[in-house]
Amino acid sequence: MQMEPSRSSHTLTTSYTVQQVMEHLFHADQHTIRERQSTGTTVDGLETGVADTIVTGIATAFSASQRVIQQAAAQGANVLVVHEGIFYSHHDQRERLHDDPVYQAKCTLIEQIGMHIIRLHDAIHLERPDGIMEGLLGQLGWRQQVVEEMAVWSIVELEQPLQLQQLAQWLKQQLAASYMRLSGESEQICQRIAVLVGYRGGATHGLPLLGRDDVDVLIAGEGPEWELPEYVRDAIEQGRSKGLIMLGHAESEQPGMQWLATRLAAQYEGLPVTYIPNEPVFRVI
Amino acid sequence: MQMEPSRSSHTLTTSYTVQQVMEHLFHADQHTIRERQSTGTTVDGLETGVADTIVTGIATAFSASQRVIQQAAAQGANVLVVHEGIFYSHHDQRERLHDDPVYQAKCTLIEQIGMHIIRLHDAIHLERPDGIMEGLLGQLGWRQQVVEEMAVWSIVELEQPLQLQQLAQWLKQQLAASYMRLSGESEQICQRIAVLVGYRGGATHGLPLLGRDDVDVLIAGEGPEWELPEYVRDAIEQGRSKGLIMLGHAESEQPGMQWLATRLAAQYEGLPVTYIPNEPVFRVI
Repeated sequence: MQMEPSRSSHTLTTSYTVQQVMEHLFHADQHTIRERQSTGTTVDGLETGVADTIVTGIATAFSASQRVIQQAAAQGANVLVVHEGIFYSHHDQRERLHDDPVYQAKCTLIEQIGMHIIRLHDAIHLERPDGIMEGLLGQLGWRQQVVEEMAVWSIVELEQPLQLQQLAQWLKQQLAASYMRLSGESEQICQRIAVLVGYRGGATHGLPLLGRDDVDVLIAGEGPEWELPEYVRDAIEQGRSKGLIMLGHAESEQPGMQWLATRLAAQYEGLPVTYIPNEPVFRVI
Repeated sequence: MQMEPSRSSHTLTTSYTVQQVMEHLFHADQHTIRERQSTGTTVDGLETGVADTIVTGIATAFSASQRVIQQAAAQGANVLVVHEGIFYSHHDQRERLHDDPVYQAKCTLIEQIGMHIIRLHDAIHLERPDGIMEGLLGQLGWRQQVVEEMAVWSIVELEQPLQLQQLAQWLKQQLAASYMRLSGESEQICQRIAVLVGYRGGATHGLPLLGRDDVDVLIAGEGPEWELPEYVRDAIEQGRSKGLIMLGHAESEQPGMQWLATRLAAQYEGLPVTYIPNEPVFRVI
């Protein structure tokens, strides 16, 4: 029986290393990300595993919880691309956790499973438009309603205005959130919405947006409780219509990681690519 | 009719300036606070008004919302002592708000009313024990249950253990919170509780506490959603019993400002001193 060189060659060209996937993921602003990696000013990079390993499958998720790591492995993935730090802080502090039993058990699991975990935080936010923002806007069906798009925020204008309480209810449903926190008057009309993802719901980004006459409501992942909600409270006391909805950090960013899976599946044909949702971190009483 | 020198002298000795009240408030670590004020590394100080004004009455509150300022004035106070920044951020950024209509209206109100607002954040946290922590522990009836007391956290051992859900329900009631966020298994037994106030519910302080075998649950004001809740999630996945309850930032710190009013009333006999509660900043759906 003769060899089939074309098929063999095809197999070779469709095999990728972890390093190649990283280069693709960091393509948005590769020069900047590489510079930042060399100076330690980005959190992006390979958190666990070896860069020249051949990729068997890719999973994406908001966070590399132990359950997500196990699910990724069960689905045949040996690469997991996540947005947040795997050891419970934005900047890696694993040297502080050496004696921690949860940390130790998680490290053992990752090593036994052989999971390559890539942190993709800065590079996806540096895409233009921001890949995490695009995921959220897509999930909400708002991409066509964007009237202003800046590096860290977008303004959306609804075709049909909603009352604040209705908007929050709708967002809770669309994002499958276990709860939603809001501030403002329930009946307030919301047409122009400032949208921010993740931990951008603080004074620095939020105050200039809430101060605009044409912004009715601001939605964000999370932010300090003593900043924007205090502004909204004073605004209402003065008779102004301003609303604020905190979606939850993961709820605001995981649509971007879901959308990333769609993009990677198109990029790596033949390679299994899946998105794994995280369960909500909190419940409310 | 003769003068009454003794009464006149008494009146003089019971009149205080704003400056004198500040010196008393910053007594805990006055040297340090003064050094930090001179180098701009404390947020404490006189936010509005003139230091040599005679005090007519003192109000305390968690935050100087417009409604709190008005209530303080209605009660005859011209001094308001608050924990958080009056212009919606921890570090004063009012130069960024010059054109903001809410900021402008609030400034006008404060000037018209003539309210002297003192920020008391660092100094009360620097008291030993931390005055804000003491207020929370007192509100919960836990001062006698403290088994460890450190600069930024305390460990409380309950006489009667509670299940996590019960504990959260009880805390919600005791602190008159509109909601409470929790992570962990509802039936988990909680006896040893790590207590942190304000924005200390993050990795830096929280991970070493949650990693201890003898800590069942951690309660804090607020903290990043991707830090401690992710740790608790992994711990539970590994079969460990760990719980986390976020009380709300104001809910965790305003008992300390309420207790401060009691202390100031004892210090300044004859001067009206009141505590003004803030309404919750968020509601949940």
